[in-house]
Amino acid sequence: MKRLGIALLGAGRMGKEHAKALAGIPEAQVVAVADPQKEAREEARFLARAERAYAEAEAAIADPAVEAVVIVTPTNTHAALIEAAAKAKKAIFAEKPVALTLAETERALAAVREAGVPFQIGFQRRYDPAYVRARRLLDEGAVGRVDQFRAVGRDPAPPPLSYLEKSGGLFLDMAIHDYDLARFLVGEVARVQAFGAVRVDPEIGRIGDVDTAITLLFFENGAQGVVENSRRSVYGYDIRTEVFGEGGKVVVDAVPKTPTWRFREGGFEADHYHFFMDRFKEAYRAELEAFVEAVLSGRTPTPGPEDALAALKIALAATKSHREGRPVAISEVQDA
Amino acid sequence: MKRLGIALLGAGRMGKEHAKALAGIPEAQVVAVADPQKEAREEARFLARAERAYAEAEAAIADPAVEAVVIVTPTNTHAALIEAAAKAKKAIFAEKPVALTLAETERALAAVREAGVPFQIGFQRRYDPAYVRARRLLDEGAVGRVDQFRAVGRDPAPPPLSYLEKSGGLFLDMAIHDYDLARFLVGEVARVQAFGAVRVDPEIGRIGDVDTAITLLFFENGAQGVVENSRRSVYGYDIRTEVFGEGGKVVVDAVPKTPTWRFREGGFEADHYHFFMDRFKEAYRAELEAFVEAVLSGRTPTPGPEDALAALKIALAATKSHREGRPVAISEVQDA
Amino acid sequence: MKRLGIALLGAGRMGKEHAKALAGIPEAQVVAVADPQKEAREEARFLARAERAYAEAEAAIADPAVEAVVIVTPTNTHAALIEAAAKAKKAIFAEKPVALTLAETERALAAVREAGVPFQIGFQRRYDPAYVRARRLLDEGAVGRVDQFRAVGRDPAPPPLSYLEKSGGLFLDMAIHDYDLARFLVGEVARVQAFGAVRVDPEIGRIGDVDTAITLLFFENGAQGVVENSRRSVYGYDIRTEVFGEGGKVVVDAVPKTPTWRFREGGFEADHYHFFMDRFKEAYRAELEAFVEAVLSGRTPTPGPEDALAALKIALAATKSHREGRPVAISEVQDA
Amino acid sequence: MKRLGIALLGAGRMGKEHAKALAGIPEAQVVAVADPQKEAREEARFLARAERAYAEAEAAIADPAVEAVVIVTPTNTHAALIEAAAKAKKAIFAEKPVALTLAETERALAAVREAGVPFQIGFQRRYDPAYVRARRLLDEGAVGRVDQFRAVGRDPAPPPLSYLEKSGGLFLDMAIHDYDLARFLVGEVARVQAFGAVRVDPEIGRIGDVDTAITLLFFENGAQGVVENSRRSVYGYDIRTEVFGEGGKVVVDAVPKTPTWRFREGGFEADHYHFFMDRFKEAYRAELEAFVEAVLSGRTPTPGPEDALAALKIALAATKSHREGRPVAISEVQDA
Repeated sequence: MKRLGIALLGAGRMGKEHAKALAGIPEAQVVAVADPQKEAREEARFLARAERAYAEAEAAIADPAVEAVVIVTPTNTHAALIEAAAKAKKAIFAEKPVALTLAETERALAAVREAGVPFQIGFQRRYDPAYVRARRLLDEGAVGRVDQFRAVGRDPAPPPLSYLEKSGGLFLDMAIHDYDLARFLVGEVARVQAFGAVRVDPEIGRIGDVDTAITLLFFENGAQGVVENSRRSVYGYDIRTEVFGEGGKVVVDAVPKTPTWRFREGGFEADHYHFFMDRFKEAYRAELEAFVEAVLSGRTPTPGPEDALAALKIALAATKSHREGRPVAISEVQDA
Repeated sequence: MKRLGIALLGAGRMGKEHAKALAGIPEAQVVAVADPQKEAREEARFLARAERAYAEAEAAIADPAVEAVVIVTPTNTHAALIEAAAKAKKAIFAEKPVALTLAETERALAAVREAGVPFQIGFQRRYDPAYVRARRLLDEGAVGRVDQFRAVGRDPAPPPLSYLEKSGGLFLDMAIHDYDLARFLVGEVARVQAFGAVRVDPEIGRIGDVDTAITLLFFENGAQGVVENSRRSVYGYDIRTEVFGEGGKVVVDAVPKTPTWRFREGGFEADHYHFFMDRFKEAYRAELEAFVEAVLSGRTPTPGPEDALAALKIALAATKSHREGRPVAISEVQDA
Repeated sequence: MKRLGIALLGAGRMGKEHAKALAGIPEAQVVAVADPQKEAREEARFLARAERAYAEAEAAIADPAVEAVVIVTPTNTHAALIEAAAKAKKAIFAEKPVALTLAETERALAAVREAGVPFQIGFQRRYDPAYVRARRLLDEGAVGRVDQFRAVGRDPAPPPLSYLEKSGGLFLDMAIHDYDLARFLVGEVARVQAFGAVRVDPEIGRIGDVDTAITLLFFENGAQGVVENSRRSVYGYDIRTEVFGEGGKVVVDAVPKTPTWRFREGGFEADHYHFFMDRFKEAYRAELEAFVEAVLSGRTPTPGPEDALAALKIALAATKSHREGRPVAISEVQDA
Repeated sequence: MKRLGIALLGAGRMGKEHAKALAGIPEAQVVAVADPQKEAREEARFLARAERAYAEAEAAIADPAVEAVVIVTPTNTHAALIEAAAKAKKAIFAEKPVALTLAETERALAAVREAGVPFQIGFQRRYDPAYVRARRLLDEGAVGRVDQFRAVGRDPAPPPLSYLEKSGGLFLDMAIHDYDLARFLVGEVARVQAFGAVRVDPEIGRIGDVDTAITLLFFENGAQGVVENSRRSVYGYDIRTEVFGEGGKVVVDAVPKTPTWRFREGGFEADHYHFFMDRFKEAYRAELEAFVEAVLSGRTPTPGPEDALAALKIALAATKSHREGRPVAISEVQDA
């Protein structure tokens, strides 16, 4: 029974989660962890049951026992590491996004294509059991011709401004997950129109971003879609998706975090997911498991480079639409 | 204990429902029913426990025992009957809409104002217990500053083309209920942008209407809103509304018609409301009860003329926006 | 279009509800109301749109326009009024119970049988849309062989001691509704074992009653059942029923009073039915409508005398079982 | 950062699950796996990332790197392995039950006590997030004085007769989990009365067991309880628990396996948990994590020997009650 030798690049909060998840996947063997911070990489090494820890990601990539890399470093390093790993002929799992610009993204993905290495992008929701089931129901014809797509994505609280400044903005950083679901569940988007607002925190406006937004999606198959986002939802992390059409609808709903209900004077109450890692814990594990299995078995991992690119283009078009106050076709998106 | 003498104008399907509802409201006494069709008016007379039945609505309005009229006639007669009743100094409950044009609506409502008679428009959802509670929660500060409004309105099946041709179109005929809820729950709308599509039935497109639509609402208070409509929903009548903001959200959800669950191999299932009269049965009764009580006690009924007018303006602006492919301010709406 | 001439006997809280409900049933005409209290009977007369009001129930029964009686008087008068109405050949709708003893019940029902008049007992839950649907699902074979029946019945708060003293005790006064559902949904009960406790209020124990109880039901078809009751449920009126068997289960659940959810920090909350008349409002109306229709059309109303008797026997057996600390067969129940 | 050296004893279906779970717990290091079947132990070694695999459990216990054992062997070997591990001064996690008789259980637990080693029994539901939250709500006073406890436990299908013959019967094998929840959530049980039936499969009756049962629990604090069990539930694995009392109720409900709803003609549907390992996947991981943390930090693991013993006594009393057709006090339970 073979294990895939993996280098985990990045030992931040999410890196540590991936470290634990990988240790629980029997077919994975983290052989090396890389992070410039010593304490972080040592902790991740412990969590991942890894032998070696490097300060430099490049050293981990070069480690001969490494067959695949899992990239969880800061966003601005993704593209370069993808290129480096591709050149080293290592299979690649990268957290989204590849990069914040089309040019950089395309260059990195071209390197992947050229090297012919397996590549998977971290749109983990595709591996959430609820979305897996939604997709299966749709494949089985539950809805038939889709007419309307509806998504809500709300975070419990905005990240720090320092993060937001480098995030690419709400459409690229947050709504992109909902755009990917739109493609996953409905199909290609032809045109978008986006409307951003600053409601939560004026500071977010001051750095040129928005914290509240609606994006209209016009799909190639004629369906209409709406995505609503907010950076602050006091009741918790609110992710819901609905696909409606001639045969009915398929809904992925937000359920209480626990099926524990308290009944008291006047009615009853339940809790709510607060932290995205709690909501998608199973999905984060499952996407890594799928990546490992695909690489070991020679199947093409999914979602792949074209999914990374397509979602980015929707997000760039939405950003442009919001800024220019007009509908923007995906085909208009060019790198500036 | 006094009863309000009422003339029920119109004995179609909805007229008969109102007849039964009025008989169950102790403070109401239907003294006359009017409908050109003999069989219909006799049945409604029986249901309403009324003394007299007239072929002509005008005769019923003139009946000296009549203190108030309930107008459930075809849409194109509403305005004239409202004017007639106003002139006769009768209190008026009218099914929506007053008329399909701004000019006609304003003329009818001017007559009401001039006569100083009580007037209530039939936006029944405001009396549905779920929406009453939503409004109360909002009044109590449950959400605080509203950031996003979300509504879905889907009918089980499109009405006949003969009806649609005279309906004023999806935005005036159907979405108007959701626009009224937007005003009821959030506040005044400054601007709309609407996107219609023909997905359900090409015949609907041929008569210049749409069967699928999204309307964006931009509220005066800065909140964003989305209304989604479809003329055909195979699973039933689907009405849901969500008000989201700094303090959380208030949701009016669609529940099964009965809280009866069938668990069988593979999972479980429930039923769904199919017919709008079933979903809003209690609301139809309650709006009439409120009207009767308001008139008897001298309070101003609600929703009133300004609500009828404001919702119509949003619907007209949405229609214009859809046709012209651009955002339309409510202030732009002028009668053509 | 014929109306059934009805005398409403009793103008207490429930009598007034029935008065309003009857006014909303087109085929019913309350011709007389009877109640010893003048103010109550006048109010009920107004609500029922009735012509006459009598102090004496007997006078109303004798009224020649009266074809049927609806008995909503205090429990200890039911049997005598049933006998009187039967002798006068009037159709009878009686609130449960007929009487608190088997002897008195049997004598009254014998009078009904002898007179050959239609008789319906007020087990309104059988007309609640949720239970109607449950029964239909069972009829369609949703569960097949039933193995377990599960019911909860909890009231928001105990009635006054003065009421409880004459109520016959928790098993006869309260659990009897759940026993009737057991028969309605599963079939005849062969044996019971009941366990009462005093948890809510020691005063209830002092008058020889219990406020908390579990009743085991052993059905003739071999299924097992459990009924749990409590006189105080701070969160509201809690009625739930589950029928489980080889093909799955059918559940009538308790849903929020309104489908309005408030999401706030930490989770979300909903309301709950508090008052039994709110939960079963539709059922109270529907059972009267069914009675009127049955009498007018010559069909036998349901639930009938045998249902009244059978549920009483289960309740008497449960009372005996609780007192004697042993299982009691229904066949053991004899009047003491 | 220290890891606890663990021997995993037993590499059957559940053993393999534990192997994977342990690999995902950073503070655990499975150093040895033991199972008489070579293929099974080799697979478990791979899953657990263990160094060594033994045919004999005793050899694994004796391995000097082993500080704790996780016992997942067949039931009839638990007691002996517990004794052996206790003598070898190893911390012990044992799947329930310790043994099927009181004598054997007490002897094994006496060995544990004598050796002073940490001991945890595998009542995994106590670590399910829903039950953890229920317990916390109860600790916070959500219900106050408890009056009624209600539990359902239904398996999708009966295990093979060969398993059932050695299982100790429904009360010891299955209902014991619900009895443990009763103790976890409400407190000590004074007396039980159990009613078993054979509904699902006559073969189960032929081996002297039942497949359908109700157990009444009378708690020391005066509360009443009911546990309902069935060996076959076609819709899936159905575990629900309710604690009701003066302040309201806390309910752990059964939710769909995925929050994915399909709406189609006539209503909507969802899936259901089918396999107990899916429903309690998180709980199985969490109980092992808690065990490891307790042992490493020197805290006493929970649930402990007294919990294993107390639940067994309730199950033995229920078995006796069912057989003798009478209530049985826990204090009556003696080993035969």
